[in-house]
Parts: sequence; structure tokens; C-alpha cells
Amino acid sequence: MHLTPEQAAQFREQGWLPELFGPEEVALLKRQAVAIYAQHRPEVWREKNGAPRTAFAAHLYNEAFRLLGAHPRMIRPVEQIFAEPVYMHQFKINAKAAFTGEVWQWHQDYGTWKRDDGMPEPRAMNIAVFLDEVMPINGPLLLVPKSHEAGDLKASHDVQTTSYPLWTLDNDTVSRLVADGGIVAATGKPGGMLMFHGNLVHGSAGNITPYPRTIVYLTLNAVSNHIRTPTRPEFIAHRDFSPIMPVADDALLREARRMPAAAE
Amino acid sequence: MHLTPEQAAQFREQGWLPELFGPEEVALLKRQAVAIYAQHRPEVWREKNGAPRTAFAAHLYNEAFRLLGAHPRMIRPVEQIFAEPVYMHQFKINAKAAFTGEVWQWHQDYGTWKRDDGMPEPRAMNIAVFLDEVMPINGPLLLVPKSHEAGDLKASHDVQTTSYPLWTLDNDTVSRLVADGGIVAATGKPGGMLMFHGNLVHGSAGNITPYPRTIVYLTLNAVSNHIRTPTRPEFIAHRDFSPIMPVADDALLREARRMPAAAE
Repeated sequence: MHLTPEQAAQFREQGWLPELFGPEEVALLKRQAVAIYAQHRPEVWREKNGAPRTAFAAHLYNEAFRLLGAHPRMIRPVEQIFAEPVYMHQFKINAKAAFTGEVWQWHQDYGTWKRDDGMPEPRAMNIAVFLDEVMPINGPLLLVPKSHEAGDLKASHDVQTTSYPLWTLDNDTVSRLVADGGIVAATGKPGGMLMFHGNLVHGSAGNITPYPRTIVYLTLNAVSNHIRTPTRPEFIAHRDFSPIMPVADDALLREARRMPAAAE
Repeated sequence: MHLTPEQAAQFREQGWLPELFGPEEVALLKRQAVAIYAQHRPEVWREKNGAPRTAFAAHLYNEAFRLLGAHPRMIRPVEQIFAEPVYMHQFKINAKAAFTGEVWQWHQDYGTWKRDDGMPEPRAMNIAVFLDEVMPINGPLLLVPKSHEAGDLKASHDVQTTSYPLWTLDNDTVSRLVADGGIVAATGKPGGMLMFHGNLVHGSAGNITPYPRTIVYLTLNAVSNHIRTPTRPEFIAHRDFSPIMPVADDALLREARRMPAAAE
């Protein structure tokens, strides 16, 4: 899997790219995500009311997510864009649970990677993989197109709004960028995939609907851009900088067929 | 203005109806709403962070909203549906302010009118008039079609989630109704208007965008169905049960032309 010139141009101009996984792969990942959220372990963060918010580092303790984290449909395009091998900087499964999923404030991911982890440049890529249908009504990722060109914006450390500390942008900055680029709600079917730049401004509203909105996020960092001064736990900002060796394109599908729902 | 047979059938089957105001009328109302939110008076309720949440009873102290509250485009269809004169049970301007507007939990309005105000039957109609563009991303009203036939559902008095106490439905009830009817996001241009049944289940998520989402809500109650045992302040649940005499269809437009933006 390599990017076409049109795909590469879309990423440069807009800051993100769409792609797709199949229904068997998605069904396996969704079942595994539900099982992981039921576990009580430090990698699973909860909302203030106890519902799961995000589970970190599942690629290190779950076979299906290990295969997803080394999938060529994600690794190859990012290698292509950065023109070098990549490693996993962060891996998380965001729940945005039905009825209770809370807001993610407006932010650039690179703001946190730089300030908290000492990442030299915004040469890490976010990839979102939808495990549920992401609709306008269940708290979709909201992207501000073209904001990836705004550089590293001034940010404040918000430790109050949700259970998860985040470097967030002020309203004037967001208003200015939205006046220029608008807002795109990244909706799509289960299996949908979305790559976006580490400086792309994004956020998401709460989910009050009965529809859960599970999204896996991989952050693939160029190996030469490895983090220098990490302050967060290793399961949030990984210290293993060895290049990811992609699995076969059908590895996740074979795992799904090996592990049908009834057998788990 | 009277309902066509098709419109009457849509209301019976789906629980709501669309209509429209013009740009001059909307511009006047929006300017007046902003001015009202800037006032500190008991009718103006604020979010926990101080942003305006809702302003009650503006039809009693603002000329533009007085004309809106007696507008034949709303009064006549509701008289037609209830087959009798109507009075104003509640009048509010909900802000859902940019960046800060909070959730309205899932509820039926009649649940509150019955429990808090002693309204005998669900023979009062909600009418929403959009003063801003209501988009999928800025906290639109979410309606559960066909839920108006579910009767008066069990509800709990939620005094914690937001600054405004509300009789809210539990998640199992909402899930069951949504499995049957789905969810419709009531989006539309400024001036859009939407009538919905007092038992129609609805809610709305928070607004994290720079786009405000101001909606005026009129609650028109059949005069014979007037409230019997009010417990809330008079500016929230009115005690004047005299029938509304509609103004002329162009009264609000004439007021808008009399009060252009620069002259206010």
C-alpha cells in the first residue's frame, strides 16, 4: 500500500487522508476493545463517572491490536510521507461511550508530544481507525482543515475539564483558525480510517446518544524524531524506538477468522 | 396560515413540523437576544461557567419577542391542532453559546409541565425558532421520532448535570425508543421553525464550536389545559391563561424595518 499522488496532495493541503478496514477485522477489534475496557489496569483511563474513556498500549498486550499496530495499511503510507522508518509513540482506544462519553477539548496533539514528551518536530502522524459508525450525533472527531500549517500554537494545560490532562487551545485561536478553514466532522462507517497531521487542530463534543463511538488512535513517529525528555508513563509515551516491521496485509483478517466471536 | 393535510399527517406520525421566518425578522431577534443575555435579571439563567444558558419570558419585556410570541405562523397551526385557543405557558431563548453551551439531557417536556406545574394533559406544543444556523456540529436538537406516542415516561429529577433542574429519562428508556425510532438532528438555517409534541423525547449535546446556536422556544398550551398546581416562578410557568390574539403576519417584519441594526 502506497499513497497515490492525489492522496499525497490531499494530505499536504488538507492535513488528513481516508482509508478502510473490512467488517471481519473491525468486528474482532470491537470485541477485543470491549473486553479491554472491562479490565481494571493502569492503561485503562475512565471518565469522571467511571465509564471507560481511553485504553492505552493495547498493541502490547492484545494480539488483534498488535496486528493493527503493525498493519501495512497504516505503516507504509506514513513511512512514505516521512521517508524513513516509524515507531509507535502512542496507541490508544478512545471509547466515547454511549450516553457518557465526554468532550475532547480543542488541541493539537503535537502540543502535548512536544511539551510533555520532548518530541523535536511534528513528524509523527495520527491515524484514527473507527470501530463503530461515527455519526454527526455521537461525538465525531471535529477537524479544522489547514490548521496543520499554523505551527505549534500557544496552549494551556487543562487538568480540570475531563479526567485526562491535555494541552488545549484558547477560544480566540480556534475561532481564528475556524474562520479560515471551517470545521469538518470526520464521520464514517466502522473500518473507516483517517490520517491526520500532528499539528491539525481537532476536538470532539460529548456523546449523549445510545450509540458508542470507539476509535483506535495510532501515533506513528519517525524514528529519527524519537522523544528526548519523556515525563509521562511509558504506556502513554513509548520508549521503544525500534522501527515497526509491518505484518502481512491479511494478518488481521486471518486472526479474525481464527478467533470468531463464539470462540473468544 | 393553516396546516395542509400533509403537514397535519406529518405531525401526527412523526411528532414535529418545519416552518420558516425571513432574514430581516431573524436578524432583529438575534440582536435582541444578544442584548437580553447581556442583562442581569432573574429571567436570564447562566451555565455553571457564567455563559448565558436560557432567558425566560422575553415576550413580556421585549417588543420583538412579544411579536414573535403572538405570531400567526405559530399560533394558528397550534390552535388548529388543539381545536381551541392557546396561551403562552413558557417562553425561552436557549443560547447554547459558542465553546461553552452545555448538554440538555434526554427528556420529555411534558414530564416537567406535569410534575412541576400541574398541567393535566400533554396538549401543549413546543415550537423552536432558530436564530442561528443549527448544524450537526453545534449542538442541534436531537429528536427521537415516534416517541411522542410513548406516553408520560418515568423520569428522575436531575439537579446536578447542568445549572437547570430537569426531569430526565434513564438510558434504558432512551435506548429502547431510539432502537425503534432512531434519532433525527434538527438542523436548519436561521429562521427555521420546528413544532414538536410535548411528549417527544429530545436532548442536545454540548457545543464546543465557535458557532453559537440560539433557539427560541415557545410553549403554547390549550387554554382548557391550563396548569393547576404551579411550583416554579411565574416567569418560567406563566399564570396568565388568556388566549393569545395573533398579531398581523407582517408585524415582526415591520418591527425589523422600524428598528434596523444601526438604530438600536
